[in-house]
Amino acid sequence: MKLQDIYARKKKDISAIEKELERSVYIDHAMLRETSVHLLKAGGKRIRPVFVLLAGEFGTYDLERMKHVAVPMELIHMSSLVHDDVIDDANTRRGQLTVRSKWDNRVAMYTGDYIFARALEIITKISNPTVHQIMSKAIVQMVVGEMEQIRFFFQTEQTIRDYMLRIKRKTALLIAISCQLGALAAGAPEPLANRLYAFGYNVGMAFQIRDDILDLRGTEKELGKPPGSDVKQGNITLPVIYALQQAELRDRILQELARIQASDGQTDATPLIETIRRSGGIERAEELSGRYIDKAIAALRQLPDVQAKQDLIDIAYFIGDRNY
Amino acid sequence: MKLQDIYARKKKDISAIEKELERSVYIDHAMLRETSVHLLKAGGKRIRPVFVLLAGEFGTYDLERMKHVAVPMELIHMSSLVHDDVIDDANTRRGQLTVRSKWDNRVAMYTGDYIFARALEIITKISNPTVHQIMSKAIVQMVVGEMEQIRFFFQTEQTIRDYMLRIKRKTALLIAISCQLGALAAGAPEPLANRLYAFGYNVGMAFQIRDDILDLRGTEKELGKPPGSDVKQGNITLPVIYALQQAELRDRILQELARIQASDGQTDATPLIETIRRSGGIERAEELSGRYIDKAIAALRQLPDVQAKQDLIDIAYFIGDRNY
Repeated sequence: MKLQDIYARKKKDISAIEKELERSVYIDHAMLRETSVHLLKAGGKRIRPVFVLLAGEFGTYDLERMKHVAVPMELIHMSSLVHDDVIDDANTRRGQLTVRSKWDNRVAMYTGDYIFARALEIITKISNPTVHQIMSKAIVQMVVGEMEQIRFFFQTEQTIRDYMLRIKRKTALLIAISCQLGALAAGAPEPLANRLYAFGYNVGMAFQIRDDILDLRGTEKELGKPPGSDVKQGNITLPVIYALQQAELRDRILQELARIQASDGQTDATPLIETIRRSGGIERAEELSGRYIDKAIAALRQLPDVQAKQDLIDIAYFIGDRNY
Repeated sequence: MKLQDIYARKKKDISAIEKELERSVYIDHAMLRETSVHLLKAGGKRIRPVFVLLAGEFGTYDLERMKHVAVPMELIHMSSLVHDDVIDDANTRRGQLTVRSKWDNRVAMYTGDYIFARALEIITKISNPTVHQIMSKAIVQMVVGEMEQIRFFFQTEQTIRDYMLRIKRKTALLIAISCQLGALAAGAPEPLANRLYAFGYNVGMAFQIRDDILDLRGTEKELGKPPGSDVKQGNITLPVIYALQQAELRDRILQELARIQASDGQTDATPLIETIRRSGGIERAEELSGRYIDKAIAALRQLPDVQAKQDLIDIAYFIGDRNY
């Protein structure tokens, strides 16, 4: 099963979301419109909207209502990326110039604020207070996660638990609530929505672990940015933490990281990446990611057998094998 | 009537809001807690929460419900200031170091995001969808206003209308909705809340015009920052626009502004400020500010004669005379 096949079934609705995304950021202000459209055109898998749509099939599916959740979830994701790129001094993302690099950090800050404000404006069309409460709590945690990332740059003493909490806030939460809110907006009962939350959370954890692995294993062409970007900016990901646990490699890795930190990310990270690749850390991270996928699928077990359930399982397996 | 006298009547509730503000930003994350508390301690007049409380008296006043609007309004204001300081490269505000200057721009960006997210989390406790719709629409406009400010830096061809729209978005809107949402949260009827919106809008316009005048007329001690800060960063305010309309002064002002722009704000702005002071632009701006105060008070005319009505009138007159 490929992601395209799942997307194919929802093709009409996904393209309706795509149109609505464009409409949602439209504004009579040239620069904000340009930065927002630039971000939208840079693409992305729209995995959050797809999760919203699929989760909605567990309730009374109504595309108009679904839009009011699917679009905000993608916009919140986009706005967090723009602010993230400011923190990371990132010049490219998905092979495109970032807003901070094409314009500047200040424009990027306000573009993020703007897209985020639009997300809020749209979700207020859903009048269920639970939806707003869940969303706002998740957003607080996401911002904390972004700050945490700064604090943990080059922190080689961090634990796997530190890493897990960070990626939960950074990635898994928004995917989890996309599933949960999609169901709630479609009027599905809360316990069902909570299982979808659990599914999304576990898929999101696996997704981020996979993403962190790719940064160490992929090529520039595959990634749309140079490999090793994480480690160069001091973002210590799961494979690195595992590699640091290898007594015979630890000192070498610490030295390489110190060298990178001292050079402000200008040093070639290839020797470090090679060491991590040989450490077995990537394989251990893959294994853990696989366990999250298993948990995600287990969370769906007791849900009714609608078509969306099989689609969610297929997406989970796809993310588990993610090699792009 | 002094502001303190009005505050005195609501003293207990205002200090309850102050405590709630502190509680609201509390977090088990040292840096976010420090930056947020730093911002809170830097003070401010808490005019938005006071408006929420007074507006609430036109409905069924319940402090707990009022808190869920008053605290978010102040937090949204604070978060916009932090992001504003990043754009303005501001080192001090109210005589205190700004977050961007004490920490850095990136910390300031996330502190703003965090405080804003907290504001959302709190206001979701009000389950009236209209409240959320009004707030989110206003926030979109506020962000657009902040971007507009960048675009209009050193734009000497701008009209009074451009200026008015900018200060509406930057200042008046949030004050307007503070009044409106305070009434709505207290269950007051919508037409009444709309009159309070009109009051807040007009007071807010007068307030910002006064603020812009002060920057040209005040001393460093009065302002908590060097005078002429606006003009040094290219922020063309109402007295400057009026001064530029004086044919005999126009060329001199344009030259001075060009000199400041070329020097990246390093040039002494005293000659320019002196010219503007002599132009009569300040007096014309004061007159316009006075007209907004009159309109604000007129908006209250048909409201029931509760004590809060007189308080609002007193605050409006106070802002009209604002010389601090």
